Amino acid sequence: MENLGTHLILDAWECPRNLLDDPEHIRRTLIEAVRCGGATLIHLHVHQFSPHGVTGTATLAESHVAIHTWPEYDYFAADLFFCGAGHPHRAVETLTEAMKAKKVRIREIKRGVEEPVGALEYAHEET
Amino acid sequence: MENLGTHLILDAWECPRNLLDDPEHIRRTLIEAVRCGGATLIHLHVHQFSPHGVTGTATLAESHVAIHTWPEYDYFAADLFFCGAGHPHRAVETLTEAMKAKKVRIREIKRGVEEPVGALEYAHEET
Repeated sequence: MENLGTHLILDAWECPRNLLDDPEHIRRTLIEAVRCGGATLIHLHVHQFSPHGVTGTATLAESHVAIHTWPEYDYFAADLFFCGAGHPHRAVETLTEAMKAKKVRIREIKRGVEEPVGALEYAHEET
Repeated sequence: MENLGTHLILDAWECPRNLLDDPEHIRRTLIEAVRCGGATLIHLHVHQFSPHGVTGTATLAESHVAIHTWPEYDYFAADLFFCGAGHPHRAVETLTEAMKAKKVRIREIKRGVEEPVGALEYAHEET
C-alpha cells in the first residue's frame, strides 16, 4: 500500500490572544492557508466558544485542516491532513505566520502506510 | 501548561468497501461515535467524492473528529481530538466496529503539553 498522505500535527505557543479569539481572522487564515497549500476547500465551519476560544474545521478535496485555539494559554492546536496534491508545510507556514506564533512544534505522520502484518489488531502506540 | 487533550490518530484496514463508500452510513457512524465518546456535536459535514471515497468532519465542543475513506484500498484514516470531557477511545471503538475494520492502528498524542523551552522554533519531528 502506498503512502496516501501527510498529516501534520501542529502545536503553536505565544500567539496574541486577540487573534486566537477572532473567528473572522481564523476564517480568513484557514482559507488563505488552504490556498497557499495548493489545496481545494470544500466546506468550512468556524465556531466561537464562550467565554473564549475558536474552532475551525475545513473539509478539503485533499482531506482536512482543523484548528482549535486556547486564548487563555496563548496557544492553538492544529492539524493538516493532505493526501495527493498540495503542500501541507506551506499551509502550516501561512497558518503560523497569520497567527503570529512565536513557538511551533510540527509532528509529521505518514498515513495509510505500514499495514500491520498478520492478525494484529488495535496496535496502540503513544507518541 | 496542562495537558489540554488527547488526539488519537487512527488507521484502519480491511473494511468492507460498501461501508467505506456510503456517506449515510458514515454520517450515522460519526454521530454515534461522538455520542458514545460522551462528546457534543456542533457541526457535521459529509462529502462523497467521485468516483469513490467519503470525507466526514465533525466539529465538537471538545475539538473534532475527521474521517477519510479509500474504498479502493479497503482503508480509512481518522483522527479524534478530544479536549476536556469525553472518552475518545470509546469513540474509536464505535467507529472501528461500525466500519467493520479488521486491522487498526491507534497513535495517541497529548496536545498542548511540553512547550519548547527557549527560542526553539519550528521543531520538526517525524513519527
